[in-house]
Amino acid sequence: MAELVKVVVDAMGGDNAPAEPVKASVDAVTERQDIQVILTGKKDIIEKELSKYENYPKDRIQVVHASEVIETAEPPVFAIRKKKDSSIVVGLNMVKKQEADAFVSSGSTGAVLVGGQVLVGRSKGVERPPLAPLIPTKDGVSLLVDCGANVDARPSHLVQFAKMGSIYMENVVGVKNPRVAIVNNGAEEEKGNALVKETFPLLKECEGINFIGSIEARDIPAGYADVIVCEAFVGNVILKLYEGVGATLIDKIKGGMMANFRSKIGALLVKPALKATLKTFDASEHGGAPLLGLKGLVVKTHGSAVAVEIKNAIFQCVQFKQQKINEKIAEQINGETVQPQQ
Amino acid sequence: MAELVKVVVDAMGGDNAPAEPVKASVDAVTERQDIQVILTGKKDIIEKELSKYENYPKDRIQVVHASEVIETAEPPVFAIRKKKDSSIVVGLNMVKKQEADAFVSSGSTGAVLVGGQVLVGRSKGVERPPLAPLIPTKDGVSLLVDCGANVDARPSHLVQFAKMGSIYMENVVGVKNPRVAIVNNGAEEEKGNALVKETFPLLKECEGINFIGSIEARDIPAGYADVIVCEAFVGNVILKLYEGVGATLIDKIKGGMMANFRSKIGALLVKPALKATLKTFDASEHGGAPLLGLKGLVVKTHGSAVAVEIKNAIFQCVQFKQQKINEKIAEQINGETVQPQQ
Repeated sequence: MAELVKVVVDAMGGDNAPAEPVKASVDAVTERQDIQVILTGKKDIIEKELSKYENYPKDRIQVVHASEVIETAEPPVFAIRKKKDSSIVVGLNMVKKQEADAFVSSGSTGAVLVGGQVLVGRSKGVERPPLAPLIPTKDGVSLLVDCGANVDARPSHLVQFAKMGSIYMENVVGVKNPRVAIVNNGAEEEKGNALVKETFPLLKECEGINFIGSIEARDIPAGYADVIVCEAFVGNVILKLYEGVGATLIDKIKGGMMANFRSKIGALLVKPALKATLKTFDASEHGGAPLLGLKGLVVKTHGSAVAVEIKNAIFQCVQFKQQKINEKIAEQINGETVQPQQ
Repeated sequence: MAELVKVVVDAMGGDNAPAEPVKASVDAVTERQDIQVILTGKKDIIEKELSKYENYPKDRIQVVHASEVIETAEPPVFAIRKKKDSSIVVGLNMVKKQEADAFVSSGSTGAVLVGGQVLVGRSKGVERPPLAPLIPTKDGVSLLVDCGANVDARPSHLVQFAKMGSIYMENVVGVKNPRVAIVNNGAEEEKGNALVKETFPLLKECEGINFIGSIEARDIPAGYADVIVCEAFVGNVILKLYEGVGATLIDKIKGGMMANFRSKIGALLVKPALKATLKTFDASEHGGAPLLGLKGLVVKTHGSAVAVEIKNAIFQCVQFKQQKINEKIAEQINGETVQPQQ
């Protein structure tokens, strides 16, 4: 049997804590035998929440007390430094000390990003660990790398994003020979800002990735590439506009369906089928976003994540560990062959 | 009566030329008495197209022959320099020589942008003329400035974009005291890349605009600001992702409605109401994008524009001229009071 993967889950992070992270943990250890979950946060609150569940393998859920909570509005660097007994810092430190393989949190994105880099630390050779969420496309998902805190990135960073993103898509998501594209303001090679123009030839020469050239933002939702490379400011705009356009459009469609009696009847009839369709185009359905290139694994789930998403993020961690993603990243970045651990 | 506004329309530009630009011109002069249209392009083709219409004020449509056509795929700078007898160059030169007030084209965006700057020329004090399309929001439209060719802009450029955008929204679109926001990767003032961090305090201090701070991409479709300021690379990503997410989502919704018999019946009932709603969220419905800060007016309409959009762009030109936008821009940028021309 595969070895037990130990995932720390932040029980205090996100809009739906502690109920949803606790439920996710219970469901995860119930569904799969190869997972151990460590819940960090206020012990009494977590245990009260856990007591709502009966039939689950109790030996595979552990609670580690953390007396503090980092709020979303707190400045991340300051919060990580000051709240040493917060659920985020305690959880990340367990990954740092290799007491756990991965950390999953729906809490402050800033704190998770900063804490991941500062506490867990970068893998050897990795210049900037990018945050890489999966975004929905017409018939699947693409990895958008970077959506993190690395604004004003350099060309060499983007090349590493492309390499790490390819490894993740191939081994965790299961896309063979993933197509890598760089976000550009035109399809032609001579287009771009200074960063893209400098990065383009480097990606073209880069071995071990399947670089297909520029991608215009218009073609991202159509799924023209599997790994979408950009610096974090642009990545943030893409990720958030996805949500924004989707939300406004769905709002307008709902309004349009209520326009008159005829359309109201129609709305009742299409609603169930439509709901199922729209779910496939909801960014929050696609698990968590890994922070790639760290010594351990850190996954950020949506602030509004519910149990099923957090559970999927826990499963992602197992896949990440079992597929030895960090070893593969180290090999790609440094050109070193890492012996698989037994 | 107001003086006649002279608008040059590129009869050869866009996917639907010459039929749609010619129809737009006929409709424009028929609907409004204060417009004269000059069609540029191949004379025989235009006249053949015009001969399909009978009852329109023929004295207010003029044809100016241009033997060449700039194709979309041609490198813009080269095309403008080489094809001196193209419909775009001939049209822009008429604006330059003040033989016309404005130029409207659905042709090559690059050629129109380059030609506008090189041939018509920048207004005194304007550093970079931005392309500023209107994008649909939940209940109206916002101006996205810049979506042009000015990638890697400087803070002073963005401040001018804010000023010019405010004047346009207030006087052409009719939004009183338009809210100006800068695209950022977070709502807090300390967020941003180097460009945004440098620009933010300048916008805060800038007189004559209603600066409301940062806007996250998520809030753009909800209509939180009237003038959305960003550099052109980001503007291009926003504009094209708007289209892309919209198209994919609508595609998926159509698919979802065809899922089963029940939903198919529903789809028939909601279709008319839905179609009307989606029209209001279609970027191409909102006329053309002006190139702001030139000595004359240049408006770019979608490559796929049909007559109604081109006609609306022509009407925009009239509003632009009658509201003396260029005089107001000159006043704002240079602090000069310009005497309105009689």
